[in-house]
Amino acid sequence: MTEQSVGIVAPQTAHFNTPLPLKSGGVLPEYDLVYETYGTLNASRSNAVLVCHALSGSHHVAGVHADSGAVGWWDNLVGPGKPLDTGRFFVIGVNNLGGCYGSSGPNSTNPATGKPWGADFPFVTVEDWVDAQARLADLLGIERFAAVVGGSLGGMQALSWTLQYPERVGHALVIASAPKLTAQNIAFNEVARQAILKDPEFHGGHYYEHGVVPTRGLALARMVGHITYLSDDSMDQKFGRSLRHDKPVFSYDVEFEIESYLRYQGDKFAGYFDANTYLLTTKALDYYDPAFDYSGDLVAALSRATADYLVVSFTTDWRFAPSRSREIVYALMHSDRRVSYAEIDCPAGHDSFLLDDAQYHAVLRAYIDNIRI
Amino acid sequence: MTEQSVGIVAPQTAHFNTPLPLKSGGVLPEYDLVYETYGTLNASRSNAVLVCHALSGSHHVAGVHADSGAVGWWDNLVGPGKPLDTGRFFVIGVNNLGGCYGSSGPNSTNPATGKPWGADFPFVTVEDWVDAQARLADLLGIERFAAVVGGSLGGMQALSWTLQYPERVGHALVIASAPKLTAQNIAFNEVARQAILKDPEFHGGHYYEHGVVPTRGLALARMVGHITYLSDDSMDQKFGRSLRHDKPVFSYDVEFEIESYLRYQGDKFAGYFDANTYLLTTKALDYYDPAFDYSGDLVAALSRATADYLVVSFTTDWRFAPSRSREIVYALMHSDRRVSYAEIDCPAGHDSFLLDDAQYHAVLRAYIDNIRI
Repeated sequence: MTEQSVGIVAPQTAHFNTPLPLKSGGVLPEYDLVYETYGTLNASRSNAVLVCHALSGSHHVAGVHADSGAVGWWDNLVGPGKPLDTGRFFVIGVNNLGGCYGSSGPNSTNPATGKPWGADFPFVTVEDWVDAQARLADLLGIERFAAVVGGSLGGMQALSWTLQYPERVGHALVIASAPKLTAQNIAFNEVARQAILKDPEFHGGHYYEHGVVPTRGLALARMVGHITYLSDDSMDQKFGRSLRHDKPVFSYDVEFEIESYLRYQGDKFAGYFDANTYLLTTKALDYYDPAFDYSGDLVAALSRATADYLVVSFTTDWRFAPSRSREIVYALMHSDRRVSYAEIDCPAGHDSFLLDDAQYHAVLRAYIDNIRI
Repeated sequence: MTEQSVGIVAPQTAHFNTPLPLKSGGVLPEYDLVYETYGTLNASRSNAVLVCHALSGSHHVAGVHADSGAVGWWDNLVGPGKPLDTGRFFVIGVNNLGGCYGSSGPNSTNPATGKPWGADFPFVTVEDWVDAQARLADLLGIERFAAVVGGSLGGMQALSWTLQYPERVGHALVIASAPKLTAQNIAFNEVARQAILKDPEFHGGHYYEHGVVPTRGLALARMVGHITYLSDDSMDQKFGRSLRHDKPVFSYDVEFEIESYLRYQGDKFAGYFDANTYLLTTKALDYYDPAFDYSGDLVAALSRATADYLVVSFTTDWRFAPSRSREIVYALMHSDRRVSYAEIDCPAGHDSFLLDDAQYHAVLRAYIDNIRI
């Protein structure tokens, strides 16, 4: 079957009045979740697949928004005839709590004050997101997901689903992910956070009321993040030492094309993403450690799981290197779980998980085609 | 012989009235160079060794300053009985032009205005530094260095000495260095620069006159730099995911010890280093490319050299990985130069070159002991 787009899609909003207890000890009294669905839920409600997003992702996984023309961030994966075939599966994307795309988050209204939550929005964790996603599943009448899929931070959610709700997940696809951050991972997040927190326009997280945005800090955060998403080699192939003016001009304006690219990515991101959401999300990344309550024993932590797994890593990913995926694979094997593992030779670094790489998509297609619904 | 300290040392200042033409096309009308020397120049003036410093280094290579108690940055290498033995060699350390430790730089007085140079200090390059160092050598009566030694950016200066003044260098020790920066290297420098340039207290580089210092930007620059100086593994061994409060406390204050370390390093650095010097020095790093005028042909670029070389890299250095050192080695071999190469298995990443690693120092000692004077 030819690959097709799911076409024009529109987000929906679900409002939840039941308070959500959070891992931090706090409670979210009520909240919205914005989501999109593609394909049709079958009569036995057995073909639902949840796609979890990463740091800067959203519920807009596939298709096109009629107003903006925006294409979903994993549109190359999700659609009729695509590896995650919406002719067969009912696919759901949801903007996580604390996000900035419509779900309750720092830039949405705090019902207690009538003003934006800002820095008062509670810390959220991977586990909290999964709990909220489970409530959305309840609302949609989905008792069990055929699969939960995610890359990077999304992969952590897929993994966590199989531990928090083992009976509700058939398969977990954990892509370009890690069982927890390393010190270096946390260090990069901390640089990003300090850039935002120290921006004079951050105003303690209540910049909305001041009519400003900490764009300088957010742009810097994105710049440093971007370096970790790409491989050294792919940066060299894309930009190398290409000079804008063919020779050094001895200025702090753009000289090397890589500078232009980074500044552009930083400024663009600062124009649409929310700084408080960035802070919250990097903290959720830092905190994630399913083995924490098991004295660091990942095998023990994963022994609750009953799902089958596909774990995928990319050779040139140095943010979450293949060795990090192998930690998950080994622990699953020692927990007697069924796990398939693929290490894809793709030059694009961490961002590979978003690309339409032939080998990568062939692996996903083969695995997903074998999921029984 | 037991290793000893060179003891109490004091910097000296040399003033130069002859204008220095710069690679940027500008001219430095007059300038100071601050330097230190250790050991004694022999009668035939054949035992001089120049040590070149890296991004945040200085002329204070070895020994102790009587007033501050500050120990030289390469004190473990330079001294009586040490690998670079001051019982045999006359060792010179010099603060590079544009620096902030006494040599003419942005924080010194612009003779034309009587005010600090600030952003008006001209761009300086590796080649300019070498030219200035050559004038200092002239002043000290040193026609030819037995060796020029440097790590990281210092290694680039050692390499450049053998190309700019081939007849004046016997040996070049090029350690933890690279023939030029990659796009990723430039990208990290660019993040650091943007952090400084966008700090509201930077004031276009004339912050001295405003009585402020762009400490936020400079601290961020240092934080991101520090991540690249350490290996992923050494960070994990030193800090791992150690929590300050034994469990997550859900705050933007320090939670993980790595956060504390990075903030401390950033704040400390911002307290003593000059932001304009940081900017200028990262640009000098970006610009360095001896093959630029040879259409990228490093073999052709190095064919001018007549020195012998020791090239040293460290297995866990991902800022200037061993593959970068091997580029230099291969080019030297194809230029028919005599080159020794050692790849040291040291866990400390790029910073390894500053450490007293046994294997590393044994290699340096063996090589230096064989230098004829």
